[in-house]
Amino acid sequence: MSYFSTVDKIKYEGVTTENPMAFRHYNPSEVVMGKTMKEHLRFGVAYWHTMTQDGSDPFGSPTNIRTWVGSTPMETAKNRVEAFFEILEKLDVEYFCFHDVDIAPEGNSLGEFFNNIDEITDLFKEKMDQTGIKLLWNTANMFSHPRYVNGAASSNSAEVFAFAAAQVKKGLDISKKLGGANYVFWGGREGYESLLNTDMKFEQDNIARLFKMAVAYGEKIGHKPQFLIEPKPMEPSKHQYDFDAATTMAFIQKYGLEGDFKLNLEANHATLAGHTFEHEMNVARCYDALGSIDANQGDMLLGWDTDEFPTNIYDTTLAMYEILENGGIAPGGINFDSKVRRSSFEMEDLLLAHIAGMDTFARGLKAAAKLKEERFFDDLKDKRYASYNDGVGARILSDQETLESLTEYSMQNGDIKLESSHLEFVKSRLNDYLV
Amino acid sequence: MSYFSTVDKIKYEGVTTENPMAFRHYNPSEVVMGKTMKEHLRFGVAYWHTMTQDGSDPFGSPTNIRTWVGSTPMETAKNRVEAFFEILEKLDVEYFCFHDVDIAPEGNSLGEFFNNIDEITDLFKEKMDQTGIKLLWNTANMFSHPRYVNGAASSNSAEVFAFAAAQVKKGLDISKKLGGANYVFWGGREGYESLLNTDMKFEQDNIARLFKMAVAYGEKIGHKPQFLIEPKPMEPSKHQYDFDAATTMAFIQKYGLEGDFKLNLEANHATLAGHTFEHEMNVARCYDALGSIDANQGDMLLGWDTDEFPTNIYDTTLAMYEILENGGIAPGGINFDSKVRRSSFEMEDLLLAHIAGMDTFARGLKAAAKLKEERFFDDLKDKRYASYNDGVGARILSDQETLESLTEYSMQNGDIKLESSHLEFVKSRLNDYLV
Amino acid sequence: MSYFSTVDKIKYEGVTTENPMAFRHYNPSEVVMGKTMKEHLRFGVAYWHTMTQDGSDPFGSPTNIRTWVGSTPMETAKNRVEAFFEILEKLDVEYFCFHDVDIAPEGNSLGEFFNNIDEITDLFKEKMDQTGIKLLWNTANMFSHPRYVNGAASSNSAEVFAFAAAQVKKGLDISKKLGGANYVFWGGREGYESLLNTDMKFEQDNIARLFKMAVAYGEKIGHKPQFLIEPKPMEPSKHQYDFDAATTMAFIQKYGLEGDFKLNLEANHATLAGHTFEHEMNVARCYDALGSIDANQGDMLLGWDTDEFPTNIYDTTLAMYEILENGGIAPGGINFDSKVRRSSFEMEDLLLAHIAGMDTFARGLKAAAKLKEERFFDDLKDKRYASYNDGVGARILSDQETLESLTEYSMQNGDIKLESSHLEFVKSRLNDYLV
Amino acid sequence: MSYFSTVDKIKYEGVTTENPMAFRHYNPSEVVMGKTMKEHLRFGVAYWHTMTQDGSDPFGSPTNIRTWVGSTPMETAKNRVEAFFEILEKLDVEYFCFHDVDIAPEGNSLGEFFNNIDEITDLFKEKMDQTGIKLLWNTANMFSHPRYVNGAASSNSAEVFAFAAAQVKKGLDISKKLGGANYVFWGGREGYESLLNTDMKFEQDNIARLFKMAVAYGEKIGHKPQFLIEPKPMEPSKHQYDFDAATTMAFIQKYGLEGDFKLNLEANHATLAGHTFEHEMNVARCYDALGSIDANQGDMLLGWDTDEFPTNIYDTTLAMYEILENGGIAPGGINFDSKVRRSSFEMEDLLLAHIAGMDTFARGLKAAAKLKEERFFDDLKDKRYASYNDGVGARILSDQETLESLTEYSMQNGDIKLESSHLEFVKSRLNDYLV
Ligand SMILES: [Co+2]
Ligand SMILES: [Co+2]
Ligand SMILES: [Co+2]
Ligand SMILES: [Co+2]
Ligand SMILES: [Co+2]
Ligand SMILES: [Co+2]
Ligand SMILES: [Co+2]
Ligand SMILES: [Co+2]
Repeated sequence: MSYFSTVDKIKYEGVTTENPMAFRHYNPSEVVMGKTMKEHLRFGVAYWHTMTQDGSDPFGSPTNIRTWVGSTPMETAKNRVEAFFEILEKLDVEYFCFHDVDIAPEGNSLGEFFNNIDEITDLFKEKMDQTGIKLLWNTANMFSHPRYVNGAASSNSAEVFAFAAAQVKKGLDISKKLGGANYVFWGGREGYESLLNTDMKFEQDNIARLFKMAVAYGEKIGHKPQFLIEPKPMEPSKHQYDFDAATTMAFIQKYGLEGDFKLNLEANHATLAGHTFEHEMNVARCYDALGSIDANQGDMLLGWDTDEFPTNIYDTTLAMYEILENGGIAPGGINFDSKVRRSSFEMEDLLLAHIAGMDTFARGLKAAAKLKEERFFDDLKDKRYASYNDGVGARILSDQETLESLTEYSMQNGDIKLESSHLEFVKSRLNDYLV
Repeated sequence: MSYFSTVDKIKYEGVTTENPMAFRHYNPSEVVMGKTMKEHLRFGVAYWHTMTQDGSDPFGSPTNIRTWVGSTPMETAKNRVEAFFEILEKLDVEYFCFHDVDIAPEGNSLGEFFNNIDEITDLFKEKMDQTGIKLLWNTANMFSHPRYVNGAASSNSAEVFAFAAAQVKKGLDISKKLGGANYVFWGGREGYESLLNTDMKFEQDNIARLFKMAVAYGEKIGHKPQFLIEPKPMEPSKHQYDFDAATTMAFIQKYGLEGDFKLNLEANHATLAGHTFEHEMNVARCYDALGSIDANQGDMLLGWDTDEFPTNIYDTTLAMYEILENGGIAPGGINFDSKVRRSSFEMEDLLLAHIAGMDTFARGLKAAAKLKEERFFDDLKDKRYASYNDGVGARILSDQETLESLTEYSMQNGDIKLESSHLEFVKSRLNDYLV
Repeated sequence: MSYFSTVDKIKYEGVTTENPMAFRHYNPSEVVMGKTMKEHLRFGVAYWHTMTQDGSDPFGSPTNIRTWVGSTPMETAKNRVEAFFEILEKLDVEYFCFHDVDIAPEGNSLGEFFNNIDEITDLFKEKMDQTGIKLLWNTANMFSHPRYVNGAASSNSAEVFAFAAAQVKKGLDISKKLGGANYVFWGGREGYESLLNTDMKFEQDNIARLFKMAVAYGEKIGHKPQFLIEPKPMEPSKHQYDFDAATTMAFIQKYGLEGDFKLNLEANHATLAGHTFEHEMNVARCYDALGSIDANQGDMLLGWDTDEFPTNIYDTTLAMYEILENGGIAPGGINFDSKVRRSSFEMEDLLLAHIAGMDTFARGLKAAAKLKEERFFDDLKDKRYASYNDGVGARILSDQETLESLTEYSMQNGDIKLESSHLEFVKSRLNDYLV
Repeated sequence: MSYFSTVDKIKYEGVTTENPMAFRHYNPSEVVMGKTMKEHLRFGVAYWHTMTQDGSDPFGSPTNIRTWVGSTPMETAKNRVEAFFEILEKLDVEYFCFHDVDIAPEGNSLGEFFNNIDEITDLFKEKMDQTGIKLLWNTANMFSHPRYVNGAASSNSAEVFAFAAAQVKKGLDISKKLGGANYVFWGGREGYESLLNTDMKFEQDNIARLFKMAVAYGEKIGHKPQFLIEPKPMEPSKHQYDFDAATTMAFIQKYGLEGDFKLNLEANHATLAGHTFEHEMNVARCYDALGSIDANQGDMLLGWDTDEFPTNIYDTTLAMYEILENGGIAPGGINFDSKVRRSSFEMEDLLLAHIAGMDTFARGLKAAAKLKEERFFDDLKDKRYASYNDGVGARILSDQETLESLTEYSMQNGDIKLESSHLEFVKSRLNDYLV
């Protein structure tokens, strides 16, 4: 059965096409800087936003029309697998991501939940074998159920910690079963609603404990996905411990997790934390910890996570530039953690919105490659930092100077001449690279 | 000569006084939890806001009337010393803080600047000997001069790095001379105006280099103040590397500086970074890095650093609670990094504003002590985390559990019962502790 | 049947009580400035947060335990009436507020919905007659149903406008039936998700049209409640037309609605719009349009509407000061548009949270009355604006001056001497009024 | 004498040029939708940012190298006139804007200030006659001097009100002398630092008084520039009364100023108020009050006015679209209220930055024209609001319906079918219009 029977596989048709169901910029097989676009971009579709998000918001009921809803939760779950792989194939997307609760009903017990997961992941495996589509990452939802009201690993209840541990174990089991490349932790309730009743250190110690258990279990079962932590500053909790990339790196270092953990960075989480997306990616690169990205965009004037499909070409250009600087994003990918607007409630919007996001990232890739090939930023920075190439600069970099030797140097050095950054010119010229 | 000849030493007169030049809550010798208020609070006055701030803002000229302005920069500098110690004595404040450029004119060369500093610090030393007043911390201003337009240690110019190093050496020399308890780094330009022309990793490596030179020099001269980094997210730079407490801890750990560096936390910097002050202090405590605090408050609806004198009793109560939990703030202190509003332009406002801040912190101390003595938060948390005292909780804390054992446990464990936090009740009861 | 059988009517017991189910500050019969607290405060309970809010959030399922859920929607609806009036009586609250959809199931047609409303409002009427409890205001929910995805009166669909009109008619009918004192419009979807596809002027014209129809209908049926518009800047829509008090006054004036419309101001909406609550109330007073208030508080570091119960005594003091300046809030009231935190999920939290809010407003009333009685702000302002009492100031106020006459005056006038505001002193002294 | 002797008049050279001192997109004589670019764009240069801004910020000293600084304030003032008109001519800009204090030293008395203004405006007049360059608008700076610490017309001091009136009179006199097209009021101190000591209504009444005096004086001297109010929410004051476009329209209506006053909207002020620039322009259009614009851009993650040169092509496209919809911006213009970054401190940056801004607006104009010509938004909206073209929709628009008739209609009307907005598709397609 087809859920999008009137739509063929989406093809690249270029900017002149009038067909909305076509790529205007994303050309999977086009070679950019020695690799195909598909290899560079490693797109993933998110199960939650695409298959289970219903268009509701805190002030409104569901709007989304979804033709896969069946008469039982399990029937719906199975229909979704069918529809999901149709979407992936029609979009020519190679990767996908999911939470445990997205794919299977929780039932009435942990055992029933796990059985449901097994049944659905069997279907996944079948589809993956048929299509070559791969699991970018999976994760356990440890924030929606009321038991997680005060956190999962950071809960004040040891029983809740134990339940979370069981979900993580299952998550790693299905990661192994499906050959998952990464495994993600996003701690939506790992934080606090009020500091007044919270022991922050106790809770963070426990989070580290769960992470170490996960590493140990992965080793035991001989499956080592790249572990990723996804920072977000707030929402749903008033404060979440993994506020941003740097905060998460402080945590990772404190608990000695550098060997096993990198970051999964989301654009909208970056801006909620007061940073640009490219900043967060750059921070991660400073710590050699850029693992994967959640592609979306926020509204800079709104204080919550809107998870919009990325359509801003400045953002995707600078994000793709960071990825090129990183030597690519593999084994991570570009996962559309994006949801259709509440008014884009038709089935076909799922395709249109992903096309929009993929085209915008394709534009970003092409612009970033041009910037790289023409050495726009490289030349700028080489010139800017040139004083460190020799003389006192070189001696500083090789740790041959001290406060005393530099005081002597400065006592004799005359007025320092600096050069203008011409930042306005730089920003205007950047516009000429956007394509 | 006296600059406040009509004002005597400020005394505690209690809430019934009509005298504005009196403490209504701060009673230096009053004993709270076994220590005098003065010992607990370790107040410091900031040279910059009190002696050199002129009331100008980006849209307006100076408003402040200051009677110590002389006919030459050096005469003014000397008058300021006189006036400053009069203020400290009249307020009964034991500590002070300054930047190098606050106290002495920069002159026309580094040599001249250092000579000026020597002359003024000689006066300081004399005054300190006479009065028993002590240096809480000093620092080098490496952000105001045009040479620092692109940073100091993070500058693209090695010559600028060298100049900064010379200022830091001098800063440590005068710290030794005056017996400074701490030495602070605040990197107002250690960050970027635009990421487009910035090599963040290169710049942060260089900042760490300067810090290590400082540690080495301190060891060499046999003077080891507690080094402190003061986080601030933005302003003047678009982004500053020491964004907040956690970000700074990531940096400190990355470069192995834990042994020598702690944090100097400012209330207004906390809120600009999206955190409460008590949150930042709590984060620092998690890393055993609460060094000292800059007492002030921001306007929660404004996006820049207003550095207002602290008058909010919620904030000071929760800040003092963190200090009590920390076992005190020594060798750090409570430095009023606060400036009078532009409309509070008279000389006497300098005293009135510090009285306001000191009274508000005294209220905070008393409220925090009561909360501690009555175990308001302690009992709340003990009860809340009780599930970790034995059984599966205790086994988790002692690292005896694994994902597998916890899965087994959860499979058999029934529905989890949680208790309400009654947060509204908690918040309302907190009001009864404010005094 | 009782839903809170273990709790008696809440009584004032003062600050020494250990009983959590008691007022510590709200003493209904205590006389303050010539009126009882109850007369001053005119508290209202909100049906939506108290009876239908379930503890869910965008990332989590319901947590709230509610014992009134029956086996059919209509049975639940009836149980809620019972429980609601029990809450009102136990809290000694005289007013209540509701949306149409809060009280009765929408059923399968507009006709069925209206029948359900009739049935439930019959029960209301009975209870009101028995208890003397009154309707502060009701409103029509024209934002939750998917039909309102693009607005109600501002919808691009005329059919949706018509549907909204039908709900408003019913709203006015039940307002008449229950003797409602006010009728509120909050336009959660009267705004836009994207300006790209929006005709702002067209949409606002239509909103004014609906308002005029409501006024006309009220006149026709001989029921004239005070119409109120509740501003909110954003959420759920990206932008809502009634952004804040001033924006709404621009709208009201443009469409000539001043005679019939005032404002219902909410604390959390104020701060989301970048204002303090007291600012919004003061703006409304400038336009003689302070109608009623929605009492709650937001988190100043979060960008969404948290609708917390008010527990900040600064906020309630300044809000009550505005109300005293306004000569009271009647025929409006103080409606708790506040919801229990997701972790306060027990039935008794509904009482505890209202007690917290009522006590905090009682504190605010007492502090505001003291400020008023001791003329703290009045004296401050009289002195501050004294230059307008005579001379050139008086001539300006009586419109006797011109640019030319004032130029002449200024040419001869010497340097202008201003006085310090001593703002830090003012803020510190304010603390002494908080009780 | 030339201040930019190595630079010829800037010419359009297209995107292939390597010459930084050339327009890549702005081609003054190119015809777009029937008018030349120059006629559409009506660019203005701001005297303050270009001639008197020095690169200082609240934490740093001046950085800007300016070769026009002479040995006396008046000599500098005269050099600036020379340099300014050289800049205008080299940039081919037809309009300019200034504050009184930008152009002439304030001297020691109001009389001396006015004489200085007379002398400088004589030079202006000469230059204007020679070059054909015109005055877009002037204004009086009533916020920088310490006398304005508490406001100008809103000051608590009647003497200050009088002084402000004198400045406004002089401003109108020179507006007449120079043939100014508009006259602007920006009230940087017309607001409050604290509501605690402020009588908002009193102050706003006085602001309206000053405005009415200005209108009367203009009539008297037979010079009627378009009066403009420039909204800004905060900074330097904590709150400014002209918060945003809508707030200012509320004020304008309240005091009956609609006939004489329109708005001067600034991009960075829009975002500080929580709005997009296009939103503010659209609001102004709803009130028929779009007067002129201040072209710049802010940093969406910073909470203060950065006044950056506009380089974002989304922003300029949507701003130009509003201007096209408005039938042009005349008699207003596009004034670069933009300053070079502190690191762009060389003289040539003044040209480079304006070129960047002009090119970005030229891109915006071309993109907006294409959107208009291809009816991209027009078709979208026509389709979207089609239900109002006939039937019940048309009857609503012609005020033939009532709550009762619409209830009857809705009772019989079946389920309402809405169409998806396909917003993601719309946003992605918009990218194809950017040029
Ligand atoms: Co994500
Ligand atoms: Co998100
Ligand atoms: Co500080
Ligand atoms: Co500060
Ligand atoms: Co409300
Ligand atoms: Co609300
Ligand atoms: Co402007
Ligand atoms: Co501006």
